[in-house]
Formats: sequence, structure tokens, C-alpha cells
Amino acid sequence: MTYADFANAALEAAVPPAHALGVRAAEVRFGFAAATAPIEGNGNHFGVMYAGVLFTVAEVLGGLIAIPAFDQAKYYPLVKDLKITYKRPALSDVRAEASLPEETLRRIEAVAAEHGKCDFTLEATITDAAGTVVAETVGLYQLRAH
Amino acid sequence: MTYADFANAALEAAVPPAHALGVRAAEVRFGFAAATAPIEGNGNHFGVMYAGVLFTVAEVLGGLIAIPAFDQAKYYPLVKDLKITYKRPALSDVRAEASLPEETLRRIEAVAAEHGKCDFTLEATITDAAGTVVAETVGLYQLRAH
Repeated sequence: MTYADFANAALEAAVPPAHALGVRAAEVRFGFAAATAPIEGNGNHFGVMYAGVLFTVAEVLGGLIAIPAFDQAKYYPLVKDLKITYKRPALSDVRAEASLPEETLRRIEAVAAEHGKCDFTLEATITDAAGTVVAETVGLYQLRAH
Repeated sequence: MTYADFANAALEAAVPPAHALGVRAAEVRFGFAAATAPIEGNGNHFGVMYAGVLFTVAEVLGGLIAIPAFDQAKYYPLVKDLKITYKRPALSDVRAEASLPEETLRRIEAVAAEHGKCDFTLEATITDAAGTVVAETVGLYQLRAH
């Protein structure tokens, strides 16, 4: 089972509304996460992907990137705030990607181990099928000890 | 047919993913819009409403408030960016509300009439069934001429 398989099982069980929108983990490894959302069923009356689906495909990356990076038995992430900026209409399936350096991930876990929580910022880029950036997000998350 | 009835028909036709999440217009009048989302089907594994549903119930207010304020045959709104700040876990149905003064709405329409578009900011507050604020949003929208 890959991290992406695990992430999709977790997404379906833990975040049913995101899963119902067709949001799926595409690639999850240490320091990197990507998720996808289909245009099918997610378009508005202009055939443009709804703003909330673009939000969701990027927002879930905070949870996905935590899977290989942190001990899932000890820690869980939550989102504190998130800003999304729309650049172009998304007329196709989309892919959101985010990454964090190893040293940042190590520091987050160390702070959470000592203080029970640690805030972290995750920037994501959402592209359409042609690779054009359709939206960007900046999210503030917190890793918390159970 | 009330503005809220019209808004719900528009929401279902124009933004199917939002409608599928159970987001509904609750009250729509000149200068004011409210929308609701149910916890049923929208919880995560902690029983907390998913971040993306809270985003959606607030984001749609930019469209709803435009219905009684602007000539729907001439203008349509779109969202340019939106920041949501989560304050407390939402464990119940929620309600999002936003308002704009009459003078602001008049100015937006006048600018859009002259220049074909006009940006406007809409702040929304999301409360749970007990009236506790669970999230706040600040969205930048644009009214555009068809």
C-alpha cells in the first residue's frame, strides 16, 4: 500500500465531503503531496470548476503531507486559516501540489513533541490539465499531539 | 417566490457541488444574505464540519447578496480571493451571514455600469446552532457586466 493509497482510505473515512467531491490523493511522499479533483460534477453553469472544490483540493494537502512526515499515532493536523487566490477559470480536471523541506518537517515534529502543537504554513499551487496555474493557496495549519 | 427561493434554484442550477453539500440560501434581501449547511454528511471523523463546507457556505454569499442588489440580466459576480479563519470546531448545522450597506451596493453597480466591472469585499461570519462564531471569511469578489 502506497502513502497515496493510505491517504485515499483516510480521506474517504475522515473527510467524506472532500471524497464525495471527487478529491483524491495522487502522490504522497516525505515532503510532498498532490491531490486531484475532476471537472465532472464540479462545474458551475459556465463549465468552470466551483471555487469550493478548488479550495478543497488544496486544503486537504495539509493532511496528506502529514501522513509520511509525522507519526500518525501521535499527531494530527488541523487547518487554522487558508487564503485562496483564483488566477484563471479551471475548465478541466485539476491538480494541487505542495511541498515542505525536510528540515521544516523535522522542526515541526520536534516543537509538537515538546509543546504539544506547532503551527506551519503550507503553500499550494493548483494547475489545470494544460499545466496552467488556476489558483494558489496559503494555509496555516497546526500539528497537534493527540 | 422569495429571493431565497430564487437563490436556491440558482444555486442548484449554477453551483451543483455547493448544492450537493447541502448549502442553502436561508435569507436573501437587499444588502443581506444568509446561507446554511447541515452537519449531517459534512462531518469529519471527529464529528466536526469539514473546512471546505464552511468555506462554501460563506463563499456563496457573494453570489446570493448580488441577487436582489444587481440586475441579474446585466451583471454576474465572481470570486477573486477568499480567506477563511477557523475559530472553533463546528459540531452542528451552521449559518453564514454577510451584509453590505446600500451606498456600497449602489457604488458597485455604478462602477460596473461605467467600467464593465467592480471589485468588492464581503466579510462573512459563520455561527453554529448555539450562535458561537466558528469561522470568519473575507472575500474579494468582482461584479462583471455580461
